[in-house]
Amino acid sequence: GLRTKLDSLHPADIAYILEALPREERLYVWDLVKAERDGEILLEVSDAVRESLIETMAPEELKAAAESLDADELADLAPDLPPEVIQDVFQSLDTEGREQLRAAMSYPEDSVGALMDFDMVTVREDVSLEVVLRYLRRFDELPDHTDKLFVVDREDHLKGILTLESLLINDPELEVADVMRSETVISFTPEDEADEAAQAFERYDLVSAPVVDGEKRVIGRLTVADVVDYIREESEAEILSHAGLREEEDIFASVWSSVKNRWAWLAINLVTAFIASRVIGAFEGSIEKLVALAALMPIVAGIGGNSGNQTITMIVRAIAMGQVEQSAMNRLLKKELGVALFNGLVWGSLLGVLAWWLYGNVELGMVMTAAMTLNLLLAASAGVLIPMIRIRLGADPALGSSVMITALTDSGGFFIFLGLATIFLL
Amino acid sequence: GLRTKLDSLHPADIAYILEALPREERLYVWDLVKAERDGEILLEVSDAVRESLIETMAPEELKAAAESLDADELADLAPDLPPEVIQDVFQSLDTEGREQLRAAMSYPEDSVGALMDFDMVTVREDVSLEVVLRYLRRFDELPDHTDKLFVVDREDHLKGILTLESLLINDPELEVADVMRSETVISFTPEDEADEAAQAFERYDLVSAPVVDGEKRVIGRLTVADVVDYIREESEAEILSHAGLREEEDIFASVWSSVKNRWAWLAINLVTAFIASRVIGAFEGSIEKLVALAALMPIVAGIGGNSGNQTITMIVRAIAMGQVEQSAMNRLLKKELGVALFNGLVWGSLLGVLAWWLYGNVELGMVMTAAMTLNLLLAASAGVLIPMIRIRLGADPALGSSVMITALTDSGGFFIFLGLATIFLL
Ligand SMILES: [Mg+2]
Ligand SMILES: [Mg+2]
Ligand SMILES: [Mg+2]
Ligand SMILES: [Mg+2]
Ligand SMILES: [Mg+2]
Ligand SMILES: [Mg+2]
Ligand SMILES: [Mg+2]
Ligand SMILES: [Mg+2]
Ligand SMILES: [Mg+2]
Ligand SMILES: [Mg+2]
Ligand SMILES: [Mg+2]
Ligand SMILES: [Mg+2]
Ligand SMILES: [Mg+2]
Repeated sequence: GLRTKLDSLHPADIAYILEALPREERLYVWDLVKAERDGEILLEVSDAVRESLIETMAPEELKAAAESLDADELADLAPDLPPEVIQDVFQSLDTEGREQLRAAMSYPEDSVGALMDFDMVTVREDVSLEVVLRYLRRFDELPDHTDKLFVVDREDHLKGILTLESLLINDPELEVADVMRSETVISFTPEDEADEAAQAFERYDLVSAPVVDGEKRVIGRLTVADVVDYIREESEAEILSHAGLREEEDIFASVWSSVKNRWAWLAINLVTAFIASRVIGAFEGSIEKLVALAALMPIVAGIGGNSGNQTITMIVRAIAMGQVEQSAMNRLLKKELGVALFNGLVWGSLLGVLAWWLYGNVELGMVMTAAMTLNLLLAASAGVLIPMIRIRLGADPALGSSVMITALTDSGGFFIFLGLATIFLL
Repeated sequence: GLRTKLDSLHPADIAYILEALPREERLYVWDLVKAERDGEILLEVSDAVRESLIETMAPEELKAAAESLDADELADLAPDLPPEVIQDVFQSLDTEGREQLRAAMSYPEDSVGALMDFDMVTVREDVSLEVVLRYLRRFDELPDHTDKLFVVDREDHLKGILTLESLLINDPELEVADVMRSETVISFTPEDEADEAAQAFERYDLVSAPVVDGEKRVIGRLTVADVVDYIREESEAEILSHAGLREEEDIFASVWSSVKNRWAWLAINLVTAFIASRVIGAFEGSIEKLVALAALMPIVAGIGGNSGNQTITMIVRAIAMGQVEQSAMNRLLKKELGVALFNGLVWGSLLGVLAWWLYGNVELGMVMTAAMTLNLLLAASAGVLIPMIRIRLGADPALGSSVMITALTDSGGFFIFLGLATIFLL
C-alpha cells in the first residue's frame, strides 16, 4: 500500500509530496512515514511545512527524530523545535557533538558557519598514497560529496588538499605531499558570507571545500549540495520579496497566516498610495476645470513606474553580482537618462498625439509629452541613485526598492503632469 | 604588470573583471589576455559581454579560440560565432568531434542535451576493482566532477554506476558487478527538460549523471557545475522578466541596445495604461461632479495591483516548484478570496474613514470601502485563475503575469470605484 511505497522513496521525494498536499492529507501521509525517517524528511521540507508537521508531533517523537541527525543538521532544525526537546537532545550528545552543535548554532543564518557540516576525511602529508588507499578501505562509506581529502598536520592545520582524482591517477608509491595541492587552495572561514562562498562554488566549480578557523585549523566542510540549496532559497526569497511576500508561504496555509505574511507590504503601499492621492487632491481645482487630466494622469504615473522598475531591477541585479563600482555611477546615470529621454520623446509624443486627437487640445498633448519625458527622467535618476546611495549607506539595495521607485514615480508623475497642466493650460 | 596578473587568474575571474568594466577598458584588458585562453573565457562571460568581445575579434582569432574547446563548449559558443568560423572549425574536427558537435547543437536551449558534455569514463562490469584502479592510473587527469564511472557493455548500454567511493572503500579483489549500483540509477535523456534535471540534481544531491539515448546507450554526462550555472541563469531571467527586461542586458550597453531590450514591455504597458485611461474617460461626467473621485481612484487600483501581484507571484512560484495540482484550484481560490475579503474590509474601512474625514462625505467613504473590497476580490480571483488557466492551455504561467494582473486591477479598480460612485453618490 501507500506505506510501503513511501518506504521506498527518497526523503526529498517524500518532502515534495508533503509540500504539495493540503493540511489534512499532509498529516495523514506524515503519520504513515516510518518514525526513523522523520528527521531526514523534516530537513528537506520548506520552513512553512516543517512548522505544520512539528506542531503535530509529541516531544518524544521530536526527540527521536532529532537524535537521528548530524550536529549541522540538528542546528538547522533547532529554531523550529521546542526548547525542552533541544535541551534533551543536547544532553544525549557526546562532548564532540555538543561542541559541533554549539558551533553550528552560533553562526548567523547567511554565514558559511550555518551551511557547513563536520563530515570530512583528513590525512597526513608524510604518508604514501598506498597508505591512504588502505585507510579509506576501512570506511564503510565516505561522507557525501567527498571529492577531496583534507591534508592536515597534528594540530589539524590545513596543509593542502588531496583530490580523489590525484589519489587515483597517481602511482601509489608517491607520498601525499608530492601530489597534494597546497597553493591556491580555496577555503572559507565560518564567518565568511554564504553569498560569497556560493559565488566561489559557482565560479570555480567546486564540489566541497574546507572551512578553517582563524589559525587555519580545519573545523568543517562546505559542500555543493548545501550551496545549491542556499542559492535556490536566496533566489526564491528575492523573487517573493519583489511582490512583498516576506517569507516562504505554505500555499495551503490558513487565511490568517497568509494575512500576517502579506500585511506589512500592503500597509506600506497604502501609505504611498495615500500620499499620491494627496498630491492629486492638491490639484482638484485644475481637474475640475479640465477633467481630461484625471483620465490621462495614471498613464504618466504608470509608465514612469514601469520604466523605473526596469532600471532599478537591472542596477540591483548588477550590484548583487558585484558588477557595479561606485565609480561607474555617473556613466550609468548618463546612460539611463539617455534611455529615458529617448523613450519619453518617442512614447510621450505618441501619447501626446493620442491625447490631442481624443480631446482636440494641442496644448494638452504637449503637456502630456513633456510630463512623460520628465517623469521617465525622474524614474531613471531614482532607479540609479536609490540603490547606489543605499549601498553607500551599507543598506541592502534590493529591499523594497520596487515600492520606493513606484511611490516616487506615482507621486512625482501626478505632480509633474498636473503641475504643468495648471501652469500651461489653465 | 597587469598581463602577468591576468595570466595567474582563473578564467571565471577574468570573465568577472571583463563584465565589470565599461566597454573601452574591457577591450583593453581583453587584448592583454593570452590568445590561448580566449576560448575558456568567452564561455564564462555573460551573453551580452561575449557579443561585445566577439565583435572585435578577427575570424582567425575566433577560429583559434573555438578550436581550444570541447564539442559541448563549442556548441554553447556557436550561436555567437560567424558561420564561416563554425564551418572552418567543423572541418578541423575528427569524426567523433563532428558527431558530438552536431548532437550538442541539435537540442533546444532548455534541454538536457544542451547542457551535457561528452567527458566520461566508462568501465565493464566483469573486471575487478583492481583492474579499474590500474586503468585510472593511466589517465593524466579525470574529467571535472567525476564522482562515478559509468558501467557499460560492449554496445555502450548503461548497466550501472560505480562511484569513486565504492571503488575506494571496497576490496580491490571484488568485481565491478559486485559493487556497482544498477537499481535506482538516475539518468537522463538529451530530450529531457533541463528544469527537471536541475530539480533532480537538487533533490538527490547529484554531482554527475549519465545521459542515455532511447536504447539506454550512454552518450554523455550532466554535471552539477553546468546545472548550477543553469539554475542561476534561470532565476536571473525570472527576476529580470518581472521588470520586463527581455534578456541579460550588459550594464554598460549603449543607450540604443537598452532601448531595444526594454521597448516591448513598455509598449504593452502603454496599451494597458491607455485602456485604463479610457475607463476613467467613460466616467468623466461623474468626476466633474465629484472631483474627490479623481484623487481616490488610484488608491483602489494600486492596492488591488499590489495584492494581485502577491497572489500571482505565490501561485506561479508554487506551480514552478510542482506544488500545485489542478485539483487544488478551488481550495486555493477560496483561501485567496478569504485573504482578499479580510484585507478589503480592514484596509478598505480604514481608507473609507480617511476619505470620510477628508471630504466630509460618509457615502464616499462607504463606496471607497466597497470598491477596495471588490477590487481585492477581483485581484485574488485573477491571481489564482490566470496562471491556472495558462498551464491548462500549455502556456508559461509566469510570462507577463504581472502586466496582466496589473492591467486588470487598474482598469477593474477604476471601473468598480467610479461605477459605484456614479450609482450611489450622484
Ligand atoms: Mg511519521
Ligand atoms: Mg551530513
Ligand atoms: Mg546549518
Ligand atoms: Mg570497507
Ligand atoms: Mg561554474
Ligand atoms: Mg550536508
Ligand atoms: Mg585576447
Ligand atoms: Mg554563463
Ligand atoms: Mg568539458
Ligand atoms: Mg551545451
Ligand atoms: Mg539538495
Ligand atoms: Mg562542463
Ligand atoms: Mg501601479
